[in-house]
Amino acid sequence: MTHALTRDSVAHMLDPQAPAALVATLAADARRASQRLSRLSTEERRAGLRAAAAAIRAEADAILAANAVDLERAEGLSPALRDRLRLDGARVAAMADGVDAVAGLADPVGQVIDESVRPNGLALSRVRVPIGVIGIIYESRPNVTADAAALCVMAGNAVILRGGSEAAESNAAIHRAFAAGLEAAGLPAAAAQRVPTTDRAAVGAMLQAEGAIDLIVPRGGKSLVARVQAEARVPVLAHLDGINHVYVDGSADPAMAEQVVLDAKMRRTGICGAMETLLIDRAYAHAPALVAALAARGCAIRGDAAVQAMGHAAAEEVDWDTEYLDAIAAVALVDGLDGALVHIARHGSHHTDAIVAADPAIAERFLAEVDSAIVLWNASTQFADGGEFGLGAEIGIATGRLHARGPVALEGLTTYKWIGRGTGQVRG
Amino acid sequence: MTHALTRDSVAHMLDPQAPAALVATLAADARRASQRLSRLSTEERRAGLRAAAAAIRAEADAILAANAVDLERAEGLSPALRDRLRLDGARVAAMADGVDAVAGLADPVGQVIDESVRPNGLALSRVRVPIGVIGIIYESRPNVTADAAALCVMAGNAVILRGGSEAAESNAAIHRAFAAGLEAAGLPAAAAQRVPTTDRAAVGAMLQAEGAIDLIVPRGGKSLVARVQAEARVPVLAHLDGINHVYVDGSADPAMAEQVVLDAKMRRTGICGAMETLLIDRAYAHAPALVAALAARGCAIRGDAAVQAMGHAAAEEVDWDTEYLDAIAAVALVDGLDGALVHIARHGSHHTDAIVAADPAIAERFLAEVDSAIVLWNASTQFADGGEFGLGAEIGIATGRLHARGPVALEGLTTYKWIGRGTGQVRG
Repeated sequence: MTHALTRDSVAHMLDPQAPAALVATLAADARRASQRLSRLSTEERRAGLRAAAAAIRAEADAILAANAVDLERAEGLSPALRDRLRLDGARVAAMADGVDAVAGLADPVGQVIDESVRPNGLALSRVRVPIGVIGIIYESRPNVTADAAALCVMAGNAVILRGGSEAAESNAAIHRAFAAGLEAAGLPAAAAQRVPTTDRAAVGAMLQAEGAIDLIVPRGGKSLVARVQAEARVPVLAHLDGINHVYVDGSADPAMAEQVVLDAKMRRTGICGAMETLLIDRAYAHAPALVAALAARGCAIRGDAAVQAMGHAAAEEVDWDTEYLDAIAAVALVDGLDGALVHIARHGSHHTDAIVAADPAIAERFLAEVDSAIVLWNASTQFADGGEFGLGAEIGIATGRLHARGPVALEGLTTYKWIGRGTGQVRG
Repeated sequence: MTHALTRDSVAHMLDPQAPAALVATLAADARRASQRLSRLSTEERRAGLRAAAAAIRAEADAILAANAVDLERAEGLSPALRDRLRLDGARVAAMADGVDAVAGLADPVGQVIDESVRPNGLALSRVRVPIGVIGIIYESRPNVTADAAALCVMAGNAVILRGGSEAAESNAAIHRAFAAGLEAAGLPAAAAQRVPTTDRAAVGAMLQAEGAIDLIVPRGGKSLVARVQAEARVPVLAHLDGINHVYVDGSADPAMAEQVVLDAKMRRTGICGAMETLLIDRAYAHAPALVAALAARGCAIRGDAAVQAMGHAAAEEVDWDTEYLDAIAAVALVDGLDGALVHIARHGSHHTDAIVAADPAIAERFLAEVDSAIVLWNASTQFADGGEFGLGAEIGIATGRLHARGPVALEGLTTYKWIGRGTGQVRG
């Protein structure tokens, strides 16, 4: 019997169809669960998430034990990766609190977007409904298991979770608690499923599952997002790069410019909302002081000729297209707003760009003409975050042009349907 | 010189990269035009469309002459296809009127979706903006050239038009007038471009133009839509099938049921909103009379066992999944609402489904649980149309779950950006 099972599992591993069949089964279960979820009231979904949060708290020891196994296996990883992977009591408690916080958000499902009564008496409305089945593909942070599942389920969607292999034991333990909590509250356990294999082919199968999975959200580094965007037949919400610019106009207040630029670059250098390129109006009198202040805060400067003339290192062409995620900034002087617009149009990544200016006409042109998901006037690019935008949480930031843009939270995880209520109307 | 030109054009035709290079050039011009368009006021875009409409009227003779060439070349085509292709004075006038009508629609661009002031004073708003560059791939109806271009440009987008080869001369003449009208009103001519080749590889190049074209809308028959959906790397808004159901509940008023069913099936059988399958509650006492009335109107009936027992022909399994677009209906008796829901979940195409019922609890369950872009209670499925829904026009009907669903008009051709106006806020 043991022998036969072993042969079966080897055959399963060698069968190139197996990941597709596995994903098809998960997706079919998820579709049924999503249909049940879509009929639940707000309070029923909230109760499910609160039970999931409680289960995570109750299973904290098991989750930490699983995490210890992952950490032991991960001895070869870098300290940064190990830190992302590591859980402790406080992190598990924060994860459960996060699930409770999502349960407390305003519910977009059932919201009437608009309504009208047609001249023939047909009463029409557009009503928000869940999207259906959402796939989350993520890397080593195990907290994504709970965060992403909570957002998807709160918006009435079933979720299929595919985390990184380094965190496999942690993710399994968190998922087990989460799904058990949902089930205890009467929600379908298949509302939150985990891909039970670290076979990378399962990711490919998810990306190809058109019609079975409605949306994929990748959470992780650039190589993951790039692979997902390149291979996916299923629609994807994501951003590849956050090559974010701050443009300091000639009209800017110098104290404000310094404050915004230092925060945008240096508050946290590793987040996608961090400034990567500083553009300064040639007419701005305080450019050398601004660049010097940035350097004094520990930021390496890579400048164009004008910035080099201030005594800083040289940028190469590639610097204008680089997301450093580090204490490095590319800095150029530009010919006013128009110069900034041309630079951003050429090098930007449609994520978050900011202007510091006292002149409102200049600022409004920047806000209108920069084609990015988020444009800011006199504020740090580091505000690019669902929590900071009042969304309560975020599943990610999207830089595509369709469906949802910028920070995506519950509303972005819904769609709508048209509902018409008549009294026998015909077109005749 | 002539010789060299000829060699160049032969080389161009044989070069598999040529369609990609052509589309890249069109798309780059379109991107620049879209940036200019996005800065124009509502009135400027309206004036552009009115000038385009005037140019179509002024060039009516040239358009009809071009159409005569297409018709002459199309002698082998079916009468139906020739009729789609044929223009006359009235059709050209209607086309120009359609462009004027789009110019009169409410402008979604600049609309504030929502706004808030964060506790730190940052004023945030989500504002509708054009999507950018839209590709339209269509078949033999030349009026799509003007209709689709008008909707795209009114929503601030540049459009790349790729019509069917049968209508090449007509499309070229309409496009020439349209673009000249835009230009005369000060809009960029590249706001509406036409792919100047009937090489089918150009369609493939459009479908692969990720990042250069933001959205593709196919307009035409199922094989076109299927090809576009199968090959596209660019997001697509479309519907493949309209396998629309009417479910007649046991509680339905018989006169209303007959009126709605006959209209849904027989008013026009060839449109995507036509009913294809009739589901009747086993508890509905008037089922034989209803099916007989449909047959008496000239509709061929393909029924399940219960319907066959009423004296009608048999349906095969494939009938439940067939979009006839003809005077044929598949008819089944089902076990009440739950039976209808199971049937529609298995065979539906997420387009338009209707219930006829007097019982509001039954009807509301149908509206909530049928997962289609449009769900109707006591109204004909033939209302599935942007004009009937008060949108003024439509670029198409979408059955996907993301971005826009059901009839898509100006709003569906926009996206949004987040705009934040601060006073020096930093995250600190």
